[in-house]
Amino acid sequence: MLGNLIGPELKELIATRNFTALREAFADWSAADVAECITDLADDEQAILFRILPHAQATEVMEYLDADAQQVVLKAMGTAEAARVLNDMSADDRTALLEELPGAAVVQLLQLLSPEEKAIAQSLLNYPEDSVGRLMTPDFIGVRDGWTVQHVLDYIREHGHRSETLHVIYITDERGILIDDLRIAELLVAPLQTAVTELRDSNFVALRVTDAAGQAIAVFRKYDRSVLPVIDSEGKLVGIVTVDDILDLQEEQTTEEMQKISGVEALEEPYMEAPLLELVRKRAVWLVVLFIGQMLTATVMGIFEGEIAKAVVLALFIPLIISSGGNSGSQAATLVIRAMALGEITIADWWRVMRREIFCGLMLGVLLGTIGVVRIVVWSNFTTGYGQHPWLVGFTVGTAVLGVVLWGTLAGSMLPLILRRCGLDPATSSAPFVATLVDVTGLMIYFTAAVLILRGTVL
Amino acid sequence: MLGNLIGPELKELIATRNFTALREAFADWSAADVAECITDLADDEQAILFRILPHAQATEVMEYLDADAQQVVLKAMGTAEAARVLNDMSADDRTALLEELPGAAVVQLLQLLSPEEKAIAQSLLNYPEDSVGRLMTPDFIGVRDGWTVQHVLDYIREHGHRSETLHVIYITDERGILIDDLRIAELLVAPLQTAVTELRDSNFVALRVTDAAGQAIAVFRKYDRSVLPVIDSEGKLVGIVTVDDILDLQEEQTTEEMQKISGVEALEEPYMEAPLLELVRKRAVWLVVLFIGQMLTATVMGIFEGEIAKAVVLALFIPLIISSGGNSGSQAATLVIRAMALGEITIADWWRVMRREIFCGLMLGVLLGTIGVVRIVVWSNFTTGYGQHPWLVGFTVGTAVLGVVLWGTLAGSMLPLILRRCGLDPATSSAPFVATLVDVTGLMIYFTAAVLILRGTVL
Repeated sequence: MLGNLIGPELKELIATRNFTALREAFADWSAADVAECITDLADDEQAILFRILPHAQATEVMEYLDADAQQVVLKAMGTAEAARVLNDMSADDRTALLEELPGAAVVQLLQLLSPEEKAIAQSLLNYPEDSVGRLMTPDFIGVRDGWTVQHVLDYIREHGHRSETLHVIYITDERGILIDDLRIAELLVAPLQTAVTELRDSNFVALRVTDAAGQAIAVFRKYDRSVLPVIDSEGKLVGIVTVDDILDLQEEQTTEEMQKISGVEALEEPYMEAPLLELVRKRAVWLVVLFIGQMLTATVMGIFEGEIAKAVVLALFIPLIISSGGNSGSQAATLVIRAMALGEITIADWWRVMRREIFCGLMLGVLLGTIGVVRIVVWSNFTTGYGQHPWLVGFTVGTAVLGVVLWGTLAGSMLPLILRRCGLDPATSSAPFVATLVDVTGLMIYFTAAVLILRGTVL
Repeated sequence: MLGNLIGPELKELIATRNFTALREAFADWSAADVAECITDLADDEQAILFRILPHAQATEVMEYLDADAQQVVLKAMGTAEAARVLNDMSADDRTALLEELPGAAVVQLLQLLSPEEKAIAQSLLNYPEDSVGRLMTPDFIGVRDGWTVQHVLDYIREHGHRSETLHVIYITDERGILIDDLRIAELLVAPLQTAVTELRDSNFVALRVTDAAGQAIAVFRKYDRSVLPVIDSEGKLVGIVTVDDILDLQEEQTTEEMQKISGVEALEEPYMEAPLLELVRKRAVWLVVLFIGQMLTATVMGIFEGEIAKAVVLALFIPLIISSGGNSGSQAATLVIRAMALGEITIADWWRVMRREIFCGLMLGVLLGTIGVVRIVVWSNFTTGYGQHPWLVGFTVGTAVLGVVLWGTLAGSMLPLILRRCGLDPATSSAPFVATLVDVTGLMIYFTAAVLILRGTVL
């Protein structure tokens, strides 16, 4: 927003290489706004703009840039400059930057770090991708049980500069085992001579360093925290995770979930930045699989070619019938996938879900089926295309719609549970896969109904 | 998790009315865990369990209960007890509780509040639904420009008990106008005699009380904050919004978005708790609209009934062709809707999006079309159903698939932008609506191709 407002003026300053004015203009800006402004520019301008920032601001701005812009400005920096920025970045943002780079570049950049920071960066990169370890930063404040509030505040004043957040202070024993957390608010309203022991409730929530990052979202939501401690398998406090990373992670994960549901493989970049060929590839995979699956519909139709030839009117309603199944199936699939992602449904609930969906499928099927019958019977008064037995044709279509909607609803709701049961991701391509499944079986339902109902009259 | 672990034991304690043991068991628990435990129980047990909690814990637990459980325990409480809990709850959680209740109940509960809390509650409920005003709490710490760090810390120690968070302190002038924010971390690491003025950078981000709640999510993400101030139209600081509410809001909004994309009206309750008839109603609306729209396919097919009668082979590929259009359309629609929701695409980008999608649509169409041609030509060696001109039939299907996929991709990507341009929600029913649109037009593309290519041979 800000970036758009003063875009042209800034471009002018960049074009005329008026660095002094630029530097001044940025002095009052927040790092997030400067980062947004830089991201909006062309690559060569990004580097120019970044290099004029005072050092402290540069590091902060770096933390707000997206992965692409980070790489651009990093490449344009001199070794000394890059070393300074990388050493000063918070450890979690640095991990995020490094994990986007090719291995050779990472090795090179690690050499720029001080021995201490290098050890930290390497240990964080050693945790599995998408684990809590990759999200955390080891910059926290740990205090001892015997201290007073005054002692803790003095300690913070001396050692707090480096910490990513001071919202929560952690109490550890001499081995570094986490024994409690203390919200800064409790500390600030307590009399200065209070012992930390008195404020303790020995009731804390911690993430494990090997937990999946996605699990952390649920813990943050449940306990309404802005920061959570991370412990290793022995209970030792090894870092903290802050809620800003969780907000971003949550958006990323739901984006991936939605893309998967619609049959696109999860994109790694934002839509507009994804290379076109990659965009095609990520969509082609499932489109081809589904297209080949859909060929079964031609096979099924081939079986009933004789019936279609005898009563072409049957063909007219094919798109109507199969799309009803597809739509009701993708509704059910989306509802169930989302409820599973939010932890509202587990595999153990399959029978309760099935009962609900049988009821919904029946109601929806009867509703749509009735509309179908009415439509055909009413229309038959104005056209001869529906033949001599409009009621029978209508009844056939109505029955097929009921069957297909019920079946679509059931398949859509059960497939995600079955996929999860098999250890697969329930979101992957569920909606179009259900539609394909229901198209093929829907045609069988339709033609079977037709043969049973219309034999001897229309057929 | 915790709740499940000791569920049976707890139930035993409740069944035997062993309140002392229960109270003790809960003493060490966090409010979030007690709340989860209560939510897992039957309604009458929820009330029993809640009433044995010590008062301070009861208020905290109340804030973590979901709306249904809150109403259950509220009903079971005596007037005095309810008054105490409602007066002590944080203002934002209380607003969330009250807005779920019918008007008469709200009026009754407001009478239980102290004059001061009543005024707060009423003013918050006066803000429009889904506005930032409904999310905020007026419990913040505001300090003056002239103070020293020592003065601020003393002030916090005296007045901070009531504040929802002490992560950020706000500097206001004598009229209450917000002039800056100060992270507690800055304050804690500064020497005690530093003047607040020296720490200021006059660079703050604030929400407006009338902003849409959804906008707040983007601001929190951009600036990596755990709390943001809320100002009124005059710039006066009226409250703060904390990130825990934003995390919940983000989940809610993406759930709604996903439900809408799949053609379900947004559910108000979690899937398993939604009444069955409501579940049917929320799905029926769009299914019926789409069903009626799909009837156009029968009309289009009716136009080409003569062609189908002459070459039944044409009917065989109808499901294959239209589903390809539907699948590619719903991929494109989901990608674009999500990118819009994340702010990556605006209406102004329509031409860039269109160019990308024309390219993707062409590539995907050629790919699927080629597979279609190959399939038909190869199959024709094993069946007589495809007639005497398999190459021509294959070419017809291939052309139609290319046209339908290109058209589906374009329609899917442009429709959300058009809906937004018309002031409508781009997510609403986009995927199935695109599928319906593409089914109808896809049939026209197919039969037009057939007439042009097959006239004189098959037709």
